[in-house]
Amino acid sequence: MWCYETLHPDIKLGIKGKSLYKKKTAHQNCQISKTKDFGNVLFLDGAIQTTEADEYIYHEMLVHPLLLTHPKPENVLIVGGGDGGVLRELFKYPIKEAIMVEIDRTVIDLSKKYLPKISKGSFRDNRLGLIIDDGAKYIKETPKKFDIVIVDSPDPVGPANALFSKKFYQGVSKVLKPNGVMIRQTGSVFLQSEILKSNYRRIKKIFPQTFIQLVSIPTYIGGFFSFIIAAKKINFLKAKKSKIKKKYSKLNLKTKYYNPDIQFASLQLPNNLKELVK
Amino acid sequence: MWCYETLHPDIKLGIKGKSLYKKKTAHQNCQISKTKDFGNVLFLDGAIQTTEADEYIYHEMLVHPLLLTHPKPENVLIVGGGDGGVLRELFKYPIKEAIMVEIDRTVIDLSKKYLPKISKGSFRDNRLGLIIDDGAKYIKETPKKFDIVIVDSPDPVGPANALFSKKFYQGVSKVLKPNGVMIRQTGSVFLQSEILKSNYRRIKKIFPQTFIQLVSIPTYIGGFFSFIIAAKKINFLKAKKSKIKKKYSKLNLKTKYYNPDIQFASLQLPNNLKELVK
Repeated sequence: MWCYETLHPDIKLGIKGKSLYKKKTAHQNCQISKTKDFGNVLFLDGAIQTTEADEYIYHEMLVHPLLLTHPKPENVLIVGGGDGGVLRELFKYPIKEAIMVEIDRTVIDLSKKYLPKISKGSFRDNRLGLIIDDGAKYIKETPKKFDIVIVDSPDPVGPANALFSKKFYQGVSKVLKPNGVMIRQTGSVFLQSEILKSNYRRIKKIFPQTFIQLVSIPTYIGGFFSFIIAAKKINFLKAKKSKIKKKYSKLNLKTKYYNPDIQFASLQLPNNLKELVK
Repeated sequence: MWCYETLHPDIKLGIKGKSLYKKKTAHQNCQISKTKDFGNVLFLDGAIQTTEADEYIYHEMLVHPLLLTHPKPENVLIVGGGDGGVLRELFKYPIKEAIMVEIDRTVIDLSKKYLPKISKGSFRDNRLGLIIDDGAKYIKETPKKFDIVIVDSPDPVGPANALFSKKFYQGVSKVLKPNGVMIRQTGSVFLQSEILKSNYRRIKKIFPQTFIQLVSIPTYIGGFFSFIIAAKKINFLKAKKSKIKKKYSKLNLKTKYYNPDIQFASLQLPNNLKELVK
């Protein structure tokens, strides 16, 4: 049997496997499938969110560039991220607190049950503050300030739509400390270039430092998958690689994909992408 | 209607479109499909070879790193490459001669008819010597010497199998001049890691300088797509970027994807790949 991703109307990925669980929550359609090549897979509204086999690429590249480049990350906010992969990588650092605001408790429950290797017990870490709520609303209302904001959300269809607006990015800027940094995913460069382009422009108006990070993730089809890194001060292209390498070794992070050379390499853009975000 | 790639048994890419032409030649099954997102697509034995929409990524990354890093490329051998995309990029350089050895004339004929934008008239360039024959046999028998060998072949199933053997690589080494360089594709890092691993080992025994280049190509699923660059002398990691940038500007290559920063970035490997080729 084949499980198909239905995110894109004219192109799809099929993975051999079978559905283990399906549920329509107040927010979205959740599905867990068991596949041969990618282990258990979480689909939200028909789009692959994470798979046991390749989640480490996405999660490592979402966490380590920011945590290693920021001089002293202590308070981290995660919007979304209910599978726990970001938490797993984050708690390798001596941070003080991680607040996670996930809109759909079912995503956490399903991930704990069917994808336990992704969170690896991180939901029990006492540095975690878990809030089940709308991330955009939380950011608007909280008086807290953070060093790092990680937006680990689905694409801008369904409940995640509000997390791609100008207002949301203004809110992120408000909750970030003067040296703060944000990262968010912005989809496939090839198949979803409009998401990347519009969000890049939106973010560039609010943050003095804006970068595109490119990563190739097997189950996210359509060539390079993009992330936008936005900072109030830190220039990621001019960051000291030797310093990052030193921190990386010292913390003994045991990453499967990430290393500091890959971090810098992933900020280099092909010509047509430079054109796209001009 | 959907066109599916059938290269991998447990994972497949579906593209909306319809078949325009099918033919079984003495060497392989050829198919041309017309798709909405990728223009016309060439399938060989069920595997996507090239599409009008994203072929430039593959062809530019196969040609420019070698042509710009070699100090004076004059004689080039292409094994395969019947769609003409390599020729198009190659003839942007002041080379003396390009010999193309393609086993299946049908691939050239179909490409000229259904994918003319890929070769863009390159088959009429008078620097081209076109030979319809087995590339492995040609390499074994020719007394010619080359600066660069580009192996633009399908995966090691069907007629291309001989182009992945120790004997073939020994032959390539024989036809290369003392400063010569070779490049070949070695499939998806994630889905075809055995191809990359075995070929890397084979090539490393023959060539003093061996590198893996990673590129993300939308229609080649499975994360990073890999190339092996093998040189008799040139160390691609230590090549002078400033010199390459100067040549790149001077030649006014008008690449859509390639630039010298991307060339160096694509040689940086994630941790698990370093492990794989240790």
